[in-house]
Amino acid sequence: MNTRLEKLMSWLKAQQIDAAFISSPDNVFYLTKFRCEPHERLLGLVVFQEKEPLLICPGMEVDDAKNAGWDKEILGYSDTDNPWDLAGERIKARLPHIRSWAVEKHHLNVDRYEELSNRYEHADFSSADRILNELRLVKDEQEIQLIKNACELADFAVEVGVNELAEGKTELDIIAAIEYEIKKKGAGMSFDPIVLAGSNASSPHGIPGLTRIERGQLVLMDLGVVYKGYCSDITRTIAFGDVSDKQKVIYETVLKAEEAAIQLTNPGVKAKELDQTARNIIKDAGYGEYFPHRLGHGLGISVHEYPSMTETNEMKLEQGMVFTIEPGIYIPGVAGVRIEDDVLVTKDGVEVLSKYPKSLQLI
Amino acid sequence: MNTRLEKLMSWLKAQQIDAAFISSPDNVFYLTKFRCEPHERLLGLVVFQEKEPLLICPGMEVDDAKNAGWDKEILGYSDTDNPWDLAGERIKARLPHIRSWAVEKHHLNVDRYEELSNRYEHADFSSADRILNELRLVKDEQEIQLIKNACELADFAVEVGVNELAEGKTELDIIAAIEYEIKKKGAGMSFDPIVLAGSNASSPHGIPGLTRIERGQLVLMDLGVVYKGYCSDITRTIAFGDVSDKQKVIYETVLKAEEAAIQLTNPGVKAKELDQTARNIIKDAGYGEYFPHRLGHGLGISVHEYPSMTETNEMKLEQGMVFTIEPGIYIPGVAGVRIEDDVLVTKDGVEVLSKYPKSLQLI
Repeated sequence: MNTRLEKLMSWLKAQQIDAAFISSPDNVFYLTKFRCEPHERLLGLVVFQEKEPLLICPGMEVDDAKNAGWDKEILGYSDTDNPWDLAGERIKARLPHIRSWAVEKHHLNVDRYEELSNRYEHADFSSADRILNELRLVKDEQEIQLIKNACELADFAVEVGVNELAEGKTELDIIAAIEYEIKKKGAGMSFDPIVLAGSNASSPHGIPGLTRIERGQLVLMDLGVVYKGYCSDITRTIAFGDVSDKQKVIYETVLKAEEAAIQLTNPGVKAKELDQTARNIIKDAGYGEYFPHRLGHGLGISVHEYPSMTETNEMKLEQGMVFTIEPGIYIPGVAGVRIEDDVLVTKDGVEVLSKYPKSLQLI
Repeated sequence: MNTRLEKLMSWLKAQQIDAAFISSPDNVFYLTKFRCEPHERLLGLVVFQEKEPLLICPGMEVDDAKNAGWDKEILGYSDTDNPWDLAGERIKARLPHIRSWAVEKHHLNVDRYEELSNRYEHADFSSADRILNELRLVKDEQEIQLIKNACELADFAVEVGVNELAEGKTELDIIAAIEYEIKKKGAGMSFDPIVLAGSNASSPHGIPGLTRIERGQLVLMDLGVVYKGYCSDITRTIAFGDVSDKQKVIYETVLKAEEAAIQLTNPGVKAKELDQTARNIIKDAGYGEYFPHRLGHGLGISVHEYPSMTETNEMKLEQGMVFTIEPGIYIPGVAGVRIEDDVLVTKDGVEVLSKYPKSLQLI
């Protein structure tokens, strides 16, 4: 039995919950190492306190699940089967009466919830979302290695984007070049890359388009790569040609804030302290109102997961946590600067996993 | 009030349901023309029998909603607001007592369902999935035009892929080239494009990789483009160099089946008749067991929607329906051939919206 599953089973026991129905592809992947995108078909992992877990997936995915290393029971079903009926029998064989279920309330849809609750009329349904988020919070060695690989690819992707910058090219031209090179390496993006030129970057909500890049602009690039199921997420802001002194001041302020938050990263420090440290530097420079978002977010299987690096999160950092540090200053109509790294909390400090240089590049 | 909303309001009235909570980005887009990807934040459209509908979205999206043409009330909320509480007041102002809700049971998650059901303890919750699928089944003029544009871009994407074919290039090289050109046009793919060479294409479940293309192979390309929220989906199988007589026979059989199903497309004909016609041609040629999937699927805002073109679907075709016709023959370890077009049911026949040539191209 793998450690991740064992932890979930222990939690069920401690909570006196008979079984869990895990439905999100991300959490099924976390617990089984089997990555499946079943679309409208049912995917589920049924976990008990002590009995063997049961994986439910479309029949044509069964071999993939075995190849991914899942060596416990698999229920593969065809499009004419009712997977709930088939699963019901296998579950009953393990545990005839289930009085309590934990489900992913933030993922499971009402239709599937009713399939389950109609079959277990007298059962309580509690949420498994929090424990799963908590289990995923601290990464193991293997996960850290995969995130490092994803970060290396993100560094490369930024390099591709920077090399592609030229007067008259559009934001989408740059993105197309980045996606092309990453695809050729056999990897994919963890979200649609963002390239925003000049004042387009002044909205933290900007959408890349056919705007052409001009000299004297700051160009913001925010992108990430997925490597074997694990994500990176990096932002660099590049000076294309000479930029104004005001733009330079903004850049240096963001960089100072970012580096201060990285410096502070250490086991035992609270998430909010990192946000506050970066935020105070930006406030003191007079740009407080132009930093409207949290400092960062955890990343791993999802590009946004725990911990949330907000001004109020009391969570203490622990060795093995991985998150982004990404302060920004966005002055409407003028420019936007964000600098984002992915960091790992180590035994006695921090390791910055994204390596692309952060000095204001003038191209 | 737009016609789509009016139809949903009439349905609520006929069903004696007080209100609907529409939560999926696709259906909110269908009813409001506002496309929003709120990620973990709440998006909702509350529709009543007679009162003005209420759109709930993150505050930073409010301007986009207005720009998209939504001229009714919008509740924008910040990350520190509780949108359910705010919405509750606005809903109460319209209708103090709600005894019945329709929700998207295939989309709404349990957490949100509980937010709603805890606030309306005595209300019944029925499903709005079916009526929404039915409303979207017949496309209006504007939708048809957008799908036509998406099909034109898909034709272009196939052309890019065919021009890129060369000995030694990998499947992912071809995909990268396709995505690059579509991105530069400011559009996106409706799903991850599939390019499979030789026996890789013999699994209807194949995943493109670093396999290099060789002479004498059939190369299968399945891709689609999204244009202003509407999808296309097209497959072509190309002979790269001389292919064997057996491969040619398979190709001609699939083409004959595909064209026969297109020929039969007409208002009043049942969906199953199209599937059966194509399937019988493939069966008669001795390849019945190698055509393991349905003939096709509807498309529009989603790349898979109603009607489902299965062997058993009794649904009668109507003017304005748009769907794929995509028979295939997959012989394990040998080759896979699929030919897919997007078709529109017209007043007295059919219009094929995808135009890329279907003769077996020998490159």
